Amino acid sequence: MEPSSFSEFDLIQWIRSQCPESTPRLLGIGDDTAVVQPPSHAELLFATDMLMEGTHFEFPATTPERAGRKALAVNISDIAAMAGKPHSALVSLALPKSKGPDFAKAVMQGITNLAQQFQVRIIGGDTNSWDGPLVINVAIMGFAATSKSVKRSGAEPGDWVFVTGELGGSLEEHHLTFSPRVQEAIKLNQTVPIHAMIDVSDGLASDMLHILEESRVGVILDETAIPISHRVSKNESKMARLEHALSDGEDFELLFTVSPQDGKKLLTNNPLHIKLTQIGEITFRKTASIQHPDGSQTPLESSGWKHSL
Amino acid sequence: MEPSSFSEFDLIQWIRSQCPESTPRLLGIGDDTAVVQPPSHAELLFATDMLMEGTHFEFPATTPERAGRKALAVNISDIAAMAGKPHSALVSLALPKSKGPDFAKAVMQGITNLAQQFQVRIIGGDTNSWDGPLVINVAIMGFAATSKSVKRSGAEPGDWVFVTGELGGSLEEHHLTFSPRVQEAIKLNQTVPIHAMIDVSDGLASDMLHILEESRVGVILDETAIPISHRVSKNESKMARLEHALSDGEDFELLFTVSPQDGKKLLTNNPLHIKLTQIGEITFRKTASIQHPDGSQTPLESSGWKHSL
Repeated sequence: MEPSSFSEFDLIQWIRSQCPESTPRLLGIGDDTAVVQPPSHAELLFATDMLMEGTHFEFPATTPERAGRKALAVNISDIAAMAGKPHSALVSLALPKSKGPDFAKAVMQGITNLAQQFQVRIIGGDTNSWDGPLVINVAIMGFAATSKSVKRSGAEPGDWVFVTGELGGSLEEHHLTFSPRVQEAIKLNQTVPIHAMIDVSDGLASDMLHILEESRVGVILDETAIPISHRVSKNESKMARLEHALSDGEDFELLFTVSPQDGKKLLTNNPLHIKLTQIGEITFRKTASIQHPDGSQTPLESSGWKHSL
Repeated sequence: MEPSSFSEFDLIQWIRSQCPESTPRLLGIGDDTAVVQPPSHAELLFATDMLMEGTHFEFPATTPERAGRKALAVNISDIAAMAGKPHSALVSLALPKSKGPDFAKAVMQGITNLAQQFQVRIIGGDTNSWDGPLVINVAIMGFAATSKSVKRSGAEPGDWVFVTGELGGSLEEHHLTFSPRVQEAIKLNQTVPIHAMIDVSDGLASDMLHILEESRVGVILDETAIPISHRVSKNESKMARLEHALSDGEDFELLFTVSPQDGKKLLTNNPLHIKLTQIGEITFRKTASIQHPDGSQTPLESSGWKHSL
């Protein structure tokens, strides 16, 4: 692997060559910190995610490019969940010494390709190598696309609950290839005021509970309305398929609430090019349930739903 | 270690209890991203550092508190190097499953104690556990304390080169316990305009070269002027002691340049409570040398200085 012929400084130089040049409004890689001149008075959004080999991805089941891509994609998705616009990111790497420079470049290529697609500037980071497995940390900064970002805490009793796209079956490949819903979130929030929003990373059930907790409300989800992904095998039982949609996680779709009036608008005229489904209703009563076709309700739990009462 | 009795959610709740409550200007832990309302038009500063067990610290030679402290301290030092004011930080952890919740709390305690001391808000992060060693990533955000932050690229021919404190011998303990020079950098930059600055992390020689490269200038350092730390053993040879000061790294002192006129001001009236030493002069000629007491000069290299020509 010729470790001496390609040092960490060489890698940083290579990364720098892949990233945008500094401008008067932006100082990128090459100083103690990056410098950004903030536009107007927009709220600043910050998030970070650490992805570890063996936990969030495995080799050779995936490629280093896809691992890198995922590390940035989950962060962009966090900005999307606030209806924000991602701006720039810092990338920290713990690289396995045994894998050599081409592996490191492939990880960064996965990151910079997605960065370019979403106009995110890679403005800094920290590059290390060690005897351990690959660890990638991305910290992202963005701005609220309108005057205020959308929080988890704004759901109101009576709100309709919506989800974009389809849920479940993400764990094989979709969790590496998904497209963060940045434009979709901004478009939705320009069409009607979104009260509360989250990206579905832990799973529909778990992430629904996060909104309920922060908003101090409850929900009744409608089992038959939940859009189960084509990725979930049709050979599984109805209940098993529902369970996938509720708990697989890493769908990275948008889960949000709007007023009933605005909900009707969205159903009449979907502003997105992807599926938009009403799946339930926010309640004053602080319980979370899923309603089955026979009218019975069972509690919604972070691991999915309780099979028996 | 009772892993089932203390989940990652419990840890996040505990971290949240240790960190400041959300305010109208700041949304902390508990949403998809943190939200900060930027003050005025100050430049935003961003940096990140990843610290890995076995590379940046070892157990049981150090404590989990000190490992956590260091992870935040090196980031605060990056903000100091821009004469900036640290504002908030995101903390990502890969926690060894075998070590249990008290270990995790101790790491966070080391971080939050230092955060409090430097008025840095921990506004978010990502908590994971795995079978690997401890990995801590901190991403920090700060603001320029004056209208412009101090870059590495502003050194001018004729500038005097200064360093705060003493250099060398940091690797035993000082790299874990050092105090980032935030107030010192701000005070210096309020007293005289600093042209270029860096914090000494890689070592005096290496970090001096970073300033030269970004500023496209050279330097002559004066061997006898370099303040060798009391931490460097007096039993070592004169040359070995110099080598420690030039290359040990992780001193986290400030290395900076000012005009000769302003340099005289600083020597006449040191505004700091710590040592301030003039150690050389920036040159138009783009070479880096160290001048010995006999008047001879040898090239300054990132590993220290070339012993023979």
